[in-house]
Amino acid sequence: MRHEEPVFQPRDEGYAERVRASFDLQQAMTLIEAELAVVDPGYVEIHLPYKSQITQQHGFIHGGVVGMIADSAAGYAANTLTPADASVLTVEYKLNLLAPADGERLVARGEVIKPGRTLLITRAEVFAVKHEQWTLCAVMQQTIMAMHGKKERVG
Amino acid sequence: MRHEEPVFQPRDEGYAERVRASFDLQQAMTLIEAELAVVDPGYVEIHLPYKSQITQQHGFIHGGVVGMIADSAAGYAANTLTPADASVLTVEYKLNLLAPADGERLVARGEVIKPGRTLLITRAEVFAVKHEQWTLCAVMQQTIMAMHGKKERVG
Amino acid sequence: MRHEEPVFQPRDEGYAERVRASFDLQQAMTLIEAELAVVDPGYVEIHLPYKSQITQQHGFIHGGVVGMIADSAAGYAANTLTPADASVLTVEYKLNLLAPADGERLVARGEVIKPGRTLLITRAEVFAVKHEQWTLCAVMQQTIMAMHGKKERVG
Amino acid sequence: MRHEEPVFQPRDEGYAERVRASFDLQQAMTLIEAELAVVDPGYVEIHLPYKSQITQQHGFIHGGVVGMIADSAAGYAANTLTPADASVLTVEYKLNLLAPADGERLVARGEVIKPGRTLLITRAEVFAVKHEQWTLCAVMQQTIMAMHGKKERVG
Repeated sequence: MRHEEPVFQPRDEGYAERVRASFDLQQAMTLIEAELAVVDPGYVEIHLPYKSQITQQHGFIHGGVVGMIADSAAGYAANTLTPADASVLTVEYKLNLLAPADGERLVARGEVIKPGRTLLITRAEVFAVKHEQWTLCAVMQQTIMAMHGKKERVG
Repeated sequence: MRHEEPVFQPRDEGYAERVRASFDLQQAMTLIEAELAVVDPGYVEIHLPYKSQITQQHGFIHGGVVGMIADSAAGYAANTLTPADASVLTVEYKLNLLAPADGERLVARGEVIKPGRTLLITRAEVFAVKHEQWTLCAVMQQTIMAMHGKKERVG
Repeated sequence: MRHEEPVFQPRDEGYAERVRASFDLQQAMTLIEAELAVVDPGYVEIHLPYKSQITQQHGFIHGGVVGMIADSAAGYAANTLTPADASVLTVEYKLNLLAPADGERLVARGEVIKPGRTLLITRAEVFAVKHEQWTLCAVMQQTIMAMHGKKERVG
Repeated sequence: MRHEEPVFQPRDEGYAERVRASFDLQQAMTLIEAELAVVDPGYVEIHLPYKSQITQQHGFIHGGVVGMIADSAAGYAANTLTPADASVLTVEYKLNLLAPADGERLVARGEVIKPGRTLLITRAEVFAVKHEQWTLCAVMQQTIMAMHGKKERVG
């Protein structure tokens, strides 16, 4: 879009470690073999290598799996900006699937649009990467709620 | 809602068999151990037993997995009403997560709201069932596109 | 959907009067000549007579106007369930347009799906009524936030 | 987002004139006094000066009106890329309201994300401009359908 990108200041220095610890507890991410590739203030990337176990009936990666990594990337992008003693939960998201998820890997990029105290509005884009060609295969718009005083259960 | 439920007439007698064959090809559904429990005209149910491999960091079933079965239930509900020589794809969906997916199993109910020739509008509800108590944990609104003359690849 | 409808208990006896006073302050509703027809606990109806000033290029009522009354009906449905000292605001909504809004009047029905303390999830349906034939022309799913201690500015 | 902006090639040289003629037929846009300020390939801006007739109960511009101009800006952005003999209709959109629409005017920017033949995926941002300060007050993600061979009724 034609406006400057916002720059975010995390409220918790340990944001990256905190997000990584939470991600590691998500067994569903382990099941699909998703990787937390980038954790910056207000921005998170999740990478997902292709494997046949996560495909749909045409052999492409399942749209539901695309939604999973989009939801997680944007949700954790929000989580980088919440205080140390807060956890986040997804209120809702809306996902458009633009092209088959056809690639050796998917890259989901989540970013915060507006970091409110209670609600954080985010968006995500998912690319299918095939022979280093990037195809935008999904876009998402999402609402995240910060639960203050409810630290993530880690360890 | 306060209006009569529509009754749908399938355009393909073999709709249930066709939907089941397509579902069986979705390896992602096998991975999470989802079951296609009901296939009626304009209505599909997917059941998902709890297992730790599909949980998030608090031990509940992952919101992305909830989205997967909601998306599939509503998409296949649309698929029951398309002709034999058509396949369907998800254009987009919007999912609200209402409560933690805390239960021994999830039940996703997808139904068609409006069956157009090219676009079918659907919705889904997902319940978490715990000690036979049903809790509504997600609602979804979805747009499905019918691809005429593009039969599902089955077998 | 195939589950029992919830029955809602308002937390403020004066809910109907409060909602009506707020609606009357919305000059945009006066501009399009929308009427607040029903105010029940968790359920609100807005009626909108046809007039050429609210049409789009094909002579039907503008989709944006359909969205306005869907948003308001569902938002006020939420507002019937909030305490007297709270105001509500729309966090987000998702609207599917199913058919042209072709009728002598539109009827928007908003209802609460889940009344949380901070967030209320709602949905709406909009019907076009022509020669007493009802056509479902839009469905909406919405998130409403209750602002506690921030009474609506009335009078 | 961190990828290059696409550049769009209109399929109809007369796209701007065609879009302007359609906009001028929307009486609902005249009613709220919205202006079609920019018409580029894949990009449209609508400006809306403040007036009390379009406000909600707190004196800000009504969220439904914000939705109207977001929907129109993105829908016409799609329309710039369709052939001369096609019309467009909104399948659905999802709008997040981020801040009160508090300003002397609103600026809605619609742009195409993916221009398919049948479906075009778009997004919009709406800014409130007050003393030349721009505040992002809404973001929208939308699906548009092109109706080929159904020319807009103009004149």
